[in-house]
Amino acid sequence: MPKVEVCFTPEDFHLYKKAQQTVVVIDVLRATSVICTALSNGIEKVITIEHIEDAKKFEGDQYIIAGERNGEKVDGFQLGNSPLAFLDNSYKGKSLILTTTNGTRAVNTAKESSELLIGSLLNAEALCHYLAKTENDVLLLCSGWKGKTNLEDSICAGYIADALKQSEIFISEEDSTIIAETLFVAARNNPMSYIKGSSHRERLLKLGLSDDIKFCLRSNTQKVIPIYTGGEFVKL
Amino acid sequence: MPKVEVCFTPEDFHLYKKAQQTVVVIDVLRATSVICTALSNGIEKVITIEHIEDAKKFEGDQYIIAGERNGEKVDGFQLGNSPLAFLDNSYKGKSLILTTTNGTRAVNTAKESSELLIGSLLNAEALCHYLAKTENDVLLLCSGWKGKTNLEDSICAGYIADALKQSEIFISEEDSTIIAETLFVAARNNPMSYIKGSSHRERLLKLGLSDDIKFCLRSNTQKVIPIYTGGEFVKL
Repeated sequence: MPKVEVCFTPEDFHLYKKAQQTVVVIDVLRATSVICTALSNGIEKVITIEHIEDAKKFEGDQYIIAGERNGEKVDGFQLGNSPLAFLDNSYKGKSLILTTTNGTRAVNTAKESSELLIGSLLNAEALCHYLAKTENDVLLLCSGWKGKTNLEDSICAGYIADALKQSEIFISEEDSTIIAETLFVAARNNPMSYIKGSSHRERLLKLGLSDDIKFCLRSNTQKVIPIYTGGEFVKL
Repeated sequence: MPKVEVCFTPEDFHLYKKAQQTVVVIDVLRATSVICTALSNGIEKVITIEHIEDAKKFEGDQYIIAGERNGEKVDGFQLGNSPLAFLDNSYKGKSLILTTTNGTRAVNTAKESSELLIGSLLNAEALCHYLAKTENDVLLLCSGWKGKTNLEDSICAGYIADALKQSEIFISEEDSTIIAETLFVAARNNPMSYIKGSSHRERLLKLGLSDDIKFCLRSNTQKVIPIYTGGEFVKL
């Protein structure tokens, strides 16, 4: 039976990586919620970039340059890191260039994986259906906050791990999976209330981003499965 | 107000370390339970050693050489890594040389800390009383399993973090602390049952060490606070 494991931070990825595995990068607040929402709303592809200077090199009408540092929009960029910016479908057919504090780092860490997908609460159920069909070993890679474990990504990993184990296709022998599932169970009735003490939620609230948080904590509003191919994320 | 934080694995210590902080190393199954129990039962000092070959260099009647790899006693050593070996007080006045898979690595990682203590469920309450008096920032450093996060150390860290925050002397702004506390709350009524799926518990059970596990999961049976000074752990 295939295994599902959770890695709480890109710092520890080297301990969990295997030659053959499907890696799901999770950055609930907000990079992977943005990638899902962008591809669900007309964006054709998403290119994640680690450094701001490299993102600026993409020039032309076909590109939307977006990104944040410490939660705030990068000066001179068209967009920050809000999923809400894509809801009116106004960037149809464009390519999104995205650079963020944690999510793009997690993607970079795992980009050599045999299969690399994007997960969030928004597309969790669709993702689980797909993963159950492929029957690969699955690693849920949380982006964390500057290398540290965070709450919202761990809860999302727990949601997905729990669903995969309940499908009875997957097993887990890892303590990290039990930990993530426990967090999901503690949070599932009211994730907003559960993460009220979370440092990153506080950080975003101070920036006036409570609508973003509410949006990102809704489960299963999207069917999209972003997959990494040729250096870009596209719809599967 | 001083802060309490949790670091789930020595791999991530560099993200949490500060010039001034009290670090508590936790390896419930079993190294830090052994250190507490040894010092509570007549052992004068404990020297933790990373490599087996270096442990073998200690010769003489005053030394008890003990250690494990993958849970099993090292060939040729007097003792393995069981706290039960010390309960009859038969090593009174001796120095314990201890080398283990995870706990000694965590100690090595943190040995430059301004204050370094040993924590386990056995001495958790005594430790909290001491920490509340010192009012230093506290980092609870879990030993994990070969770099990965484990369940029993995270639960113990959650116990201590919860007690320190309830004392109203400490605050925490870290998600890792909330995570550890959630695990402690989920486990506290029956830690044995909660960690039944834990990989390391399974590993120890296969080695016939269920009495060790039961012993290590009992809370607050010891008053000892092991402190690192001059390369050795002694009773505070």
